Amino acid sequence: MALYGERGFDNTTVAEIAERAGLTERTFFRHFADKREVLFDGAAELQELLVGRVADAPGSLAPIEAVAEALDAAGAQFQEHREFSRQRQAIIGASAELRERELIKLASLSAALADTLRRRGVSEPDASLTAEAGIAVFRIAFERWVDDANELALPDLMRDSLDHLRSVTGGV
Amino acid sequence: MALYGERGFDNTTVAEIAERAGLTERTFFRHFADKREVLFDGAAELQELLVGRVADAPGSLAPIEAVAEALDAAGAQFQEHREFSRQRQAIIGASAELRERELIKLASLSAALADTLRRRGVSEPDASLTAEAGIAVFRIAFERWVDDANELALPDLMRDSLDHLRSVTGGV
Repeated sequence: MALYGERGFDNTTVAEIAERAGLTERTFFRHFADKREVLFDGAAELQELLVGRVADAPGSLAPIEAVAEALDAAGAQFQEHREFSRQRQAIIGASAELRERELIKLASLSAALADTLRRRGVSEPDASLTAEAGIAVFRIAFERWVDDANELALPDLMRDSLDHLRSVTGGV
Repeated sequence: MALYGERGFDNTTVAEIAERAGLTERTFFRHFADKREVLFDGAAELQELLVGRVADAPGSLAPIEAVAEALDAAGAQFQEHREFSRQRQAIIGASAELRERELIKLASLSAALADTLRRRGVSEPDASLTAEAGIAVFRIAFERWVDDANELALPDLMRDSLDHLRSVTGGV
C-alpha cells in the first residue's frame, strides 16, 4: 500500500508491488485476483466480524441494536489503525476504479447482513432495510472518522451517526 | 435492450446492438461510453427529477419528507413502465458487471441528493444520512416492485419502505 501512496494507484504495477513484498507475480496472483484486491484484503474479515456478531447477538436485541453492536466491535478494531485507514481511504478516494470496488464490497456486506438477519427471523423488507441502514451508518461514520477535522473515536461516530439517522428519518 | 433479453448481456456485441437500432457502431459510441450504458440511459433523467424535486420542495418540509416526495414522483414515472423495468432488472441482476454499474449510479444519485440537501441548509452528517436513507428506500422498494409476487404500485412501496425504515431504526 505504501507504493500506491507514493506513486498513485494507476502508476503502480503488479510487478512493483510483488517486488516490494518479496513475492513473484505468480504468487501475487495466487493471493489477489488483481491489484485492486490488495486494498480490500480486510473486507472478508470485516464481513465475518459483522455477520458473526449479528448472528451471535442475544435474541432479545432489536435487529438494529444487533447491527449497532457489531458496528461497535468493527469500529473498535479500525480505531487501532487510524493512520493506515486514512492513507488507504485517500488512495481509494483518488481512483474511480477503487471507489467502484469499494461500493461492491459494501453492497456484498449489506447483502450478508440482511441474510444473517433473515436467519434470525427478521422478515423482509425489514432485514434488508436494517442492513442498508447499518451500512449507511458505517459508511458515513467512517468518512467522518478519516476526515482530519474529526477527533472522535470511530465507535462513538458510529453511535452518533445512527442517532442522526434515527432523527432524520423520524423527523417530520 | 430486447437483444440483451434474448441472448444475455455477455453474448451481445455493440455491432449487433447498433445494427438492431439502425445505427453505425461509431454513432453508438457517440451516444454511449460502452454497451453497459445503454441500460442506464435513464439514470441522468432520474437524477435530474429527484434533485429537482428536492431543490424545489417547500422549505417547511423536513428533509426526509422532501426526499420522500421526490421518490413519489419518480415512483409514479416508473410505474408506467413496469414491464420494461422488470426486463431491465432481470438483465442487470444476471450480470456482475451490470450490478456494479448500477451501484455506481445509485452512489452518484446519493451524492447528488446530499449535495442538494446541503444547499437547502441541511448540515452534515444529516444531509448524507438523509440521502442514503432515501436511496436505501428507493432500492428496496424497487426490488419489491419488480418482484412478481408484489402487486402494489411503486409509489406505495416507496412510502411503505420508508415506514419500515423508520420502524426498524427507531425500534430498540
